[in-house]
Amino acid sequence: MRAAPAPRSTHGPAVVAFGGGHGLSASLSALRLVTDRITAVVTVADDGGSSGRLRDELGVLPPGDLRMALAALCDDSEWGRTWRDVLQHRFASDGGLDQHAVGNLLIVALWELLGDTVEGLDWVGRLLGARGRVLPMAAVPLRIEADVRGETGPRVVVGQSRIAVTVEPIEAVRLVPADPPACAEAVEAVRSADWIVLGPGSWYTSVLPHLLVPELRDALRETSAPIVLTLNLAAGTGETAGMRAEHYLDVIHEYAPELRFAAVVADPAAVEDPVLLADHCELTGAHLILRQVSRGDGTARHDPLRLAAAYRDAMDRVLGDVG
Amino acid sequence: MRAAPAPRSTHGPAVVAFGGGHGLSASLSALRLVTDRITAVVTVADDGGSSGRLRDELGVLPPGDLRMALAALCDDSEWGRTWRDVLQHRFASDGGLDQHAVGNLLIVALWELLGDTVEGLDWVGRLLGARGRVLPMAAVPLRIEADVRGETGPRVVVGQSRIAVTVEPIEAVRLVPADPPACAEAVEAVRSADWIVLGPGSWYTSVLPHLLVPELRDALRETSAPIVLTLNLAAGTGETAGMRAEHYLDVIHEYAPELRFAAVVADPAAVEDPVLLADHCELTGAHLILRQVSRGDGTARHDPLRLAAAYRDAMDRVLGDVG
Repeated sequence: MRAAPAPRSTHGPAVVAFGGGHGLSASLSALRLVTDRITAVVTVADDGGSSGRLRDELGVLPPGDLRMALAALCDDSEWGRTWRDVLQHRFASDGGLDQHAVGNLLIVALWELLGDTVEGLDWVGRLLGARGRVLPMAAVPLRIEADVRGETGPRVVVGQSRIAVTVEPIEAVRLVPADPPACAEAVEAVRSADWIVLGPGSWYTSVLPHLLVPELRDALRETSAPIVLTLNLAAGTGETAGMRAEHYLDVIHEYAPELRFAAVVADPAAVEDPVLLADHCELTGAHLILRQVSRGDGTARHDPLRLAAAYRDAMDRVLGDVG
Repeated sequence: MRAAPAPRSTHGPAVVAFGGGHGLSASLSALRLVTDRITAVVTVADDGGSSGRLRDELGVLPPGDLRMALAALCDDSEWGRTWRDVLQHRFASDGGLDQHAVGNLLIVALWELLGDTVEGLDWVGRLLGARGRVLPMAAVPLRIEADVRGETGPRVVVGQSRIAVTVEPIEAVRLVPADPPACAEAVEAVRSADWIVLGPGSWYTSVLPHLLVPELRDALRETSAPIVLTLNLAAGTGETAGMRAEHYLDVIHEYAPELRFAAVVADPAAVEDPVLLADHCELTGAHLILRQVSRGDGTARHDPLRLAAAYRDAMDRVLGDVG
């Protein structure tokens, strides 16, 4: 018998947030201030750290990004915060447990015990009193491959953890296996959503991969829900170092030219040429919401309150069009 | 701030159960049918398996017997049973996670996070909706040493896991460090208990060790709560193979001569000479409750319902004396 998912409130619009890693945590931390009806759809291509080792040792989906998304949605009570901290806790030792996150182990245990990916995640959601639901984008573990322009010519970089830190320009990314089956509950959530939020996050390894899953791309094209794109804050290093704001849109357009955005959220400090970005947005009919969404402490981290306010601005602007 | 322990019912008498491993699980599974007010006091000398590895790798109390006791007290609901199954789940792999019980990892994570042994166990109790509380007998990890009569002369066996499977007669056991500090909450529970239940369990490595902790032995001698001793079912192998029923009492008497029992529960199939056992009981003023408490399936496992009924018999007989 399948356990019921965590009891979910009906407060606020139904929002599906796509991403992975810290970027998705940022959008979820903001969205939980806007609505209780959140579905996070998470990349499952991680191959580094605790997740990579679990994937290798036990043959499971990498749980790390799923765990982080669940943690971001925890109930704001002593109960929810304590179990969040337990799930985020990492062992430190000279042995086999070193750097394993407890939540990764718990998620994998539920998968092994229940034999059902979504049911296992729903149980962790219930434990945390999560404001919403967390789903994998695909039903099978994935690898990401990137073609990069190396110093001595083109070469292929294999694996999310390697791509995320590459300093050479990325020319193309693909999933292995290509055309993986989507998580059915994720497709259904997109089709019945009121809003979709894409990004922020590692653009090539946490955001784009969703558009490479055929059923998800189809659902995103066909849903009546407006899509809000959240651009990254200035990235100092890694796969998108030095990438211009409007190029984020270009990359998405290259992989999913049919995708239309209703709004684009960007921080002025991460936009080199606001006029050029506004032009790019106007071409696709998207409102540009240009306002500080960073913490402003010099780190490239979003402030949940400011990002939540930006999402509310974006939603009101889009609804204003309709009304 | 210290979290409140699991909300506890006030239904039934306050019972403190001493033991470890499968023996303690058996008495707890029975006692939860008698009362909601259970405190399990658990040996912390395990040095084998998942617990032994965690102890070595992370320098913590061995969590395995604590986990088993918590599992035995779980709420009888889909929630309680599912989290019990998760906690009892063991990974199977060729890597560092092999045979680790998930509950052991969770308990250790709570200890590391909260910095408090009892508070960590209370949080797992709340997760399980446990019918009662689980405490360690001592505040520090212990080792057990045994003097055995070897084939070629006396020798010392070090470690619970080795002693439990020794085939040579045990002549003495001791704790290292000797005279360890007791868990303060366990001492307090004994002093305010209505009943104490000692055993069943590996006699030298799960039952006797409690009497080697000075504060616990003092509390047991001074408490007004009647003590019920549960003898083991016939053990085919290991530390008490071939041990006669009355000898279980003799061993306890040797280590804690001042301890008086109000009742002794034994299964007729594990008693070679009922008259002799009755004589031993009469000498100490204990009622002998001689009735089937085994499952009767050929295994040396207690039946929770039969053992619960035997405890009720024992309690009524003792109260009959008073009344």
